Amino acid sequence: MTTRLDNSRLIRAPRGREMTAKTWGAEAALRMLMNNLDPEVAERPNELVVYGGIGRAARDWESFDRIVASLRSLEPDETLLIQSGKPVGIFRTHTDAPRVLLANSNLVPGWATWDHFHHLDKLGLMMYGQMTAGSWIYIGSQGIVQGTYETFAEVARRHFGGSLKGKWILTGGLGGMGGAQPLAATMAGASMIAVECQPSRIEMRLKTRYLDAEAKTIEEALEIVERSHKAGRPISVGLLGNAAEVFPEMVARGIRPDVVTDQTSAHDPLNGYLPAGWSLARWEEARERDPKAVEAAAKQSMATHVRAMLDFHRMGVPTLDYGNNIRQMAKDMGVADAFDFPGFVPAYIRPLFCRGIGPFRWASLTGDPEDIAKTDAKVKELIPDDPHLHNWLDMAQERIQFQGLPARICWVGLGDRHRLGLAFNEMVARGEIGPIVIGRDHLDSGSVASPNRETEAMKDGSDAVSDWPLLNALLNTASGATWVSLHHGGGVGMGYSQHAGVVIVADGTPEAAARLGRVLWNDPGTGVMRHADAGYDIAVDCAREKGLKLPALGIGV
Amino acid sequence: MTTRLDNSRLIRAPRGREMTAKTWGAEAALRMLMNNLDPEVAERPNELVVYGGIGRAARDWESFDRIVASLRSLEPDETLLIQSGKPVGIFRTHTDAPRVLLANSNLVPGWATWDHFHHLDKLGLMMYGQMTAGSWIYIGSQGIVQGTYETFAEVARRHFGGSLKGKWILTGGLGGMGGAQPLAATMAGASMIAVECQPSRIEMRLKTRYLDAEAKTIEEALEIVERSHKAGRPISVGLLGNAAEVFPEMVARGIRPDVVTDQTSAHDPLNGYLPAGWSLARWEEARERDPKAVEAAAKQSMATHVRAMLDFHRMGVPTLDYGNNIRQMAKDMGVADAFDFPGFVPAYIRPLFCRGIGPFRWASLTGDPEDIAKTDAKVKELIPDDPHLHNWLDMAQERIQFQGLPARICWVGLGDRHRLGLAFNEMVARGEIGPIVIGRDHLDSGSVASPNRETEAMKDGSDAVSDWPLLNALLNTASGATWVSLHHGGGVGMGYSQHAGVVIVADGTPEAAARLGRVLWNDPGTGVMRHADAGYDIAVDCAREKGLKLPALGIGV
Ligand SMILES: NC(=O)c1ccc[n+]([C@@H]2O[C@H](COP(=O)([O-])OP(=O)(O)OC[C@H]3O[C@@H](n4cnc5c(N)ncnc54)[C@H](O)[C@@H]3O)[C@@H](O)[C@H]2O)c1
Ligand SMILES: NC(=O)c1ccc[n+]([C@@H]2O[C@H](COP(=O)([O-])OP(=O)(O)OC[C@H]3O[C@@H](n4cnc5c(N)ncnc54)[C@H](O)[C@@H]3O)[C@@H](O)[C@H]2O)c1
Repeated sequence: MTTRLDNSRLIRAPRGREMTAKTWGAEAALRMLMNNLDPEVAERPNELVVYGGIGRAARDWESFDRIVASLRSLEPDETLLIQSGKPVGIFRTHTDAPRVLLANSNLVPGWATWDHFHHLDKLGLMMYGQMTAGSWIYIGSQGIVQGTYETFAEVARRHFGGSLKGKWILTGGLGGMGGAQPLAATMAGASMIAVECQPSRIEMRLKTRYLDAEAKTIEEALEIVERSHKAGRPISVGLLGNAAEVFPEMVARGIRPDVVTDQTSAHDPLNGYLPAGWSLARWEEARERDPKAVEAAAKQSMATHVRAMLDFHRMGVPTLDYGNNIRQMAKDMGVADAFDFPGFVPAYIRPLFCRGIGPFRWASLTGDPEDIAKTDAKVKELIPDDPHLHNWLDMAQERIQFQGLPARICWVGLGDRHRLGLAFNEMVARGEIGPIVIGRDHLDSGSVASPNRETEAMKDGSDAVSDWPLLNALLNTASGATWVSLHHGGGVGMGYSQHAGVVIVADGTPEAAARLGRVLWNDPGTGVMRHADAGYDIAVDCAREKGLKLPALGIGV
Repeated sequence: MTTRLDNSRLIRAPRGREMTAKTWGAEAALRMLMNNLDPEVAERPNELVVYGGIGRAARDWESFDRIVASLRSLEPDETLLIQSGKPVGIFRTHTDAPRVLLANSNLVPGWATWDHFHHLDKLGLMMYGQMTAGSWIYIGSQGIVQGTYETFAEVARRHFGGSLKGKWILTGGLGGMGGAQPLAATMAGASMIAVECQPSRIEMRLKTRYLDAEAKTIEEALEIVERSHKAGRPISVGLLGNAAEVFPEMVARGIRPDVVTDQTSAHDPLNGYLPAGWSLARWEEARERDPKAVEAAAKQSMATHVRAMLDFHRMGVPTLDYGNNIRQMAKDMGVADAFDFPGFVPAYIRPLFCRGIGPFRWASLTGDPEDIAKTDAKVKELIPDDPHLHNWLDMAQERIQFQGLPARICWVGLGDRHRLGLAFNEMVARGEIGPIVIGRDHLDSGSVASPNRETEAMKDGSDAVSDWPLLNALLNTASGATWVSLHHGGGVGMGYSQHAGVVIVADGTPEAAARLGRVLWNDPGTGVMRHADAGYDIAVDCAREKGLKLPALGIGV
């Protein structure tokens, strides 16, 4: 039998320049797998759950141990295959090929439902990979902070003349990703009331200083915000409660937030959303005993929740789905107009994707925070004319606590990513810093098909075409990434998305430089290609300017 | 506007050693794309349709022209991306990377329906790739002859001590695919009585020499077989009649075939199956006038037909469904035990898949039939101890007419494929033959997830897990295949399968040898891995014997 829960385990990536694997590629995979399960990083490390409900780093503890052993023994010309968190094979490839190839949670479409997934999961045949959980490049809440920050900043520009001063945002969920919202909000100059049903989640966010205050009632939360606004400062408040109860109550009481969104784990009705009126104990118990009933009750509550969001939307409050598929769930339950308020990607993020801009990130493999400070400085040096980016780096240095291996994220696009990667590699070569691992979220410009989120309302109607992320993964493999992953489900759940991940190591060698130059150009390049093909002018212009070759559009050929 | 139909086009691959592209990799892709549209090969070449209803080689004629131009200009370190038959990008990779990466007909599962596909197809955003149509390695009807031959050969091994001498197979249907049955049967050493209701189909198969004789009554058919068996020769007989009448009558008269199957088009009750007691004229007329009545009558007859197959099954006669869904139709009509006899994959093909054996194929890029004769001889030399294989090669040389570029298919597995590929490459290097392109069907050991066909009734219940074909495609890319494809739909249609293709060129260089050695080992290796992981002893034994490294099973590590 396989072991999913082992409370005796305490995983933390090794630090330093001493390798236990035979290449920095395999060592990087090893450390990042372990880093994903570091208690500072993972939500339920003893269950191998990294984030996003049941997003795991490995299928079970036996698989974890075998992955580690496989990576340690992996030759420089071998490639390890991971099938839904289990190490199924090692094959000889070549030194420019990826060291690891991963496919997580993929099901033939006709069977791509939560029911069938859970059935297979119970049989021990599957694991939910989320996006960066099963692909070993989750770096804690920082990853989502900037994405959320960019979104709020864009909301400010679009609806509030550029400033969120004196405004407050209503949201739900302070989990692995959602916990980034209060910090992103205050960084963007807004206050926030985040409704969260688990006291532990609120405590955790207070402890990491992502969250400023807590409240037990709506009045208390509003008072805290009001008081802080009087003092001229934004503040974030964790409000203990159920969003499916608090949101409608605010509507009923005529309370008007300035922005409304939500990050409960609505994509996973069995594990991610507490039904209204239920205690946590009842929830936990019922999930085991009667999962069907939990799902039904959760989806019923989501419908109520979305109806309240629609009320805010109709009042003229900017209201956005933040990618948890809550509109779809509500629609399934009969809320016909659930999609009346937009998803955050078409509304705010797509113009960035058109230039290949997305959640680029890197971590210090040796665990030295100084290395990140040095790379931060290098980013400023190489991209001198972007005050927004400089501001982000300053604020991040000040307010972002590292979780696990020190890491940095900043949204940069085609033409910048490979310059940064090559510069980092040179710094490693000169001994200024230790080896660096570079990756991104699956939520990126060219790597995802997700009609309810990243590819919602594409200009040409190609929302559901998943050829694109598959090509992205194949091209990154062909370009020499260190590991490449193909997932299904992710943040929006079974049946709703397919997406690809990529990670590459800068170990200071010239060979790594060649691979970095290709991968960090091609990867965002596929994003510009995909959006140009869909007819976005920004992407077409970017493709021409950067010299991409897009035969079907007659560009560069 | 894009052009799908162009009657002025006549495509045929260039022959000879003169390249118009810059590498044999790109030249091979070019020639095989064109070969797929050769009128000898394709069903409706002017519509770019290769086979299988609407399986296309390129999205439209503009895309075809741009693919050709892209391949001609492609540098030795560039890779062309094809998205559902359209050339969307060219990126720099390296010389050991694939020259082409293709993703065809892939849709996010929640939208993976014929309706949504047709919607996108009409918008010009998609193309149906079938299996080898969109991945440029279809070689005409030789493929189905060989597949059917292998099934009969496996029936022989399993039930008749390896020989079908003096045995006869009862089947129905001599259509596009089913017409390959009599030739496959006699090649495998068995006689066949094939019940076919349309005289034109019998005539057609007599003319192409796929069928040896015809009969109007059961007695006559049995006499022909008996006479031939006395003379020590297998013979195939087309028996004009309705399978729904002939099968039960044989049961009633105590006639006992040695094997029973069927290839009427039962999957399509409106157009594919003549109801018992109906004339062809009545059938044709009623299809127009009262389609519902035709469907009901056809399904009623299929139930009768399947009941007779069940009677044979209970007599101990090996009885198999050949992928026309007739069991499902009968079950729909109340035949509760319809699935008591097995489908051909779990019953006969899976043991082959467990050893990585599947539809390996190659073609002469220069178009010289002599090159195929030489490779045939090389196969016999390198695999001296497989009489079935030798028999197939002899019979194929004698009875299979080439369509388009001369090609050969033969089912070989892990441990043999790379030896053949390397030997062919040496022959090219020595100038004995021109460059050879090597590939396979997507219906293969490690490359497909298709719960109603190739992965029906997997031992561990993992029928729908599509991580496996994705890993197959990623690994083939990492190993240096010349082109790699990921498709959805294929022979069973939208929503029902995901599958991967691989093609690699033997151009006689040492670099090609290195790639061939990896790809033609790793590709069938993933099939053995997938079946070993599902718990098949044959695969576990094969993995140990061949020295695969399967960490999760503790094999080779
Ligand atoms: N970029 C994106 O599109 C994006 C980014 C981040 C998160 N998301 C989505 O947002 C969701 C949250 O992600 P996460 O990683 O934080 O998940 P999580 O499961 O870690 O956190 C969800 C939180 O919601 C709380 N919660 C559940 N039901 C609640 C209810 N009824 N009322 C109040 N709180 C409730 C839970 O206690 C938990 O803390 C997911 O669906 C994820 O896919 C999307
Ligand atoms: N690998 C596979 O799974 C596989 C391979 C080959 C064929 N098939 C299936 O086999 C079937 C046949 O394929 P095809 O391409 O030959 O189809 P087809 O339509 O070309 O041929 C069917 C033939 O059956 C005859 N027929 C119909 N009803 C009959 C009856 N009652 N009695 C006797 N003959 C009858 C028709 O006259 C026709 O010649 C299809 O369902 C196909 O999907 C599956």
